[in-house]
Amino acid sequence: MISKAKIKFIRQLEHKKARRELGLFVAEGPKVVGDLLAAMQPRLVVATDSWMQGKMFAPEAEVVTVTDEELRRVSFLMHPQEVLAVFPIPSGEKAFMPHADELMLALDGVQDPGNLGTIIRIADWFGINHIYCSPDTADVWNPKVVQATMGSIARVTVGYGPLQQLISALPDGYPVYGTLLDGHDLYAEALTATGLIIMGNEGNGISVAIRQLVNRRLLIPNYPPGRPTADSLNVAIATAVTCAEFRRRSF
Amino acid sequence: MISKAKIKFIRQLEHKKARRELGLFVAEGPKVVGDLLAAMQPRLVVATDSWMQGKMFAPEAEVVTVTDEELRRVSFLMHPQEVLAVFPIPSGEKAFMPHADELMLALDGVQDPGNLGTIIRIADWFGINHIYCSPDTADVWNPKVVQATMGSIARVTVGYGPLQQLISALPDGYPVYGTLLDGHDLYAEALTATGLIIMGNEGNGISVAIRQLVNRRLLIPNYPPGRPTADSLNVAIATAVTCAEFRRRSF
Repeated sequence: MISKAKIKFIRQLEHKKARRELGLFVAEGPKVVGDLLAAMQPRLVVATDSWMQGKMFAPEAEVVTVTDEELRRVSFLMHPQEVLAVFPIPSGEKAFMPHADELMLALDGVQDPGNLGTIIRIADWFGINHIYCSPDTADVWNPKVVQATMGSIARVTVGYGPLQQLISALPDGYPVYGTLLDGHDLYAEALTATGLIIMGNEGNGISVAIRQLVNRRLLIPNYPPGRPTADSLNVAIATAVTCAEFRRRSF
Repeated sequence: MISKAKIKFIRQLEHKKARRELGLFVAEGPKVVGDLLAAMQPRLVVATDSWMQGKMFAPEAEVVTVTDEELRRVSFLMHPQEVLAVFPIPSGEKAFMPHADELMLALDGVQDPGNLGTIIRIADWFGINHIYCSPDTADVWNPKVVQATMGSIARVTVGYGPLQQLISALPDGYPVYGTLLDGHDLYAEALTATGLIIMGNEGNGISVAIRQLVNRRLLIPNYPPGRPTADSLNVAIATAVTCAEFRRRSF
């Protein structure tokens, strides 16, 4: 049995303000919750009896067994899936520290929650452990984005802050890549095993201020060269093609 | 001024049944309509006075000038954009004929309209002119998909039919590629300049029947090899990484 107060507590986490104030986010379903449980301790687990079977949690986790009908009342999904859990948002400052010995990804104003979720899955697939988001990028702790990552959020650290600050903390001459319309052919350029790849806003690309900090301008060539084509690729698609090429060189 | 009957005529094209019976689809906005006008003649154009300035149409095209308020009543968009046009759906049979001298794409049960739209943009970018869809793939003439292609639907032919039939019409031993979990590393395999690349359903991948017709099994490797990672890539992402690699080899 779940109390009205508890339902209200969970439902407020739909809002960014509440998530930030409480430092908590919601995940749902056996896959996403399962991946997160492998990485961190939950604060609250709301699940059906069948899902709970054989599960163990740290003593500080509150556990509530519910019926399907009760789960439907707390869930953010159209089709609730056995379990909903509340986890602590990893510390913002720590998540925004650069890892110059790795290949890193920065997002400059990516607005669409679906794109953000897909990009986190891409990073996970290509072994990129850290994503840095400008403050105007969509909020990764939005329940929709958490679900769209399909569990990858458990393995990829996502931090928010001014990208200028991140870049200025990198060593002098450190490779800062960006895909730009006047960039150089991705397949003809030298790529480094470590570096920061910046992806921009869906409509406007990388912002003017950040563009000036890009020291390696890349372009995903269309085919055949010179043929009239789509004006651009979706930002998640461009991220995937770029990351795939960086990793292809490292195999 | 637009009549109620005309509004009803346009609005019914939201439904697949009406689109198929009438052989018509709707496109909106200066970009998508503009790209389509470069490729085919419209049956009906509904637009604001400012958009109409200097435009010419074939005599069989019906043209209606409307106010912003009237446009809002016919539009399928949250924010209508100056023009809506009705175009004929290109002939189904012709669109399903194989082009064995090109690199082609087949979709086996791609369900999500957003994924389908994104895949058409990807095909356009990478110069893939023909996409073949199984009957259970989302309908490309759905107004949402047309918009999601951002005009690429004007340059890529999309046909529907049984993929078995398409494949059986190809020459013996013709390369039929599919990305499968037990495939071979995309980056280590020989790839041909012409061939058919099959992409599968979001949840289940390529169907069992079609899987048996794939004679070149590919896998997009994750990085680093053997690390726990996302279970899979989104189908549009996998399409992009695969097509990009085919084209990289051809430059």
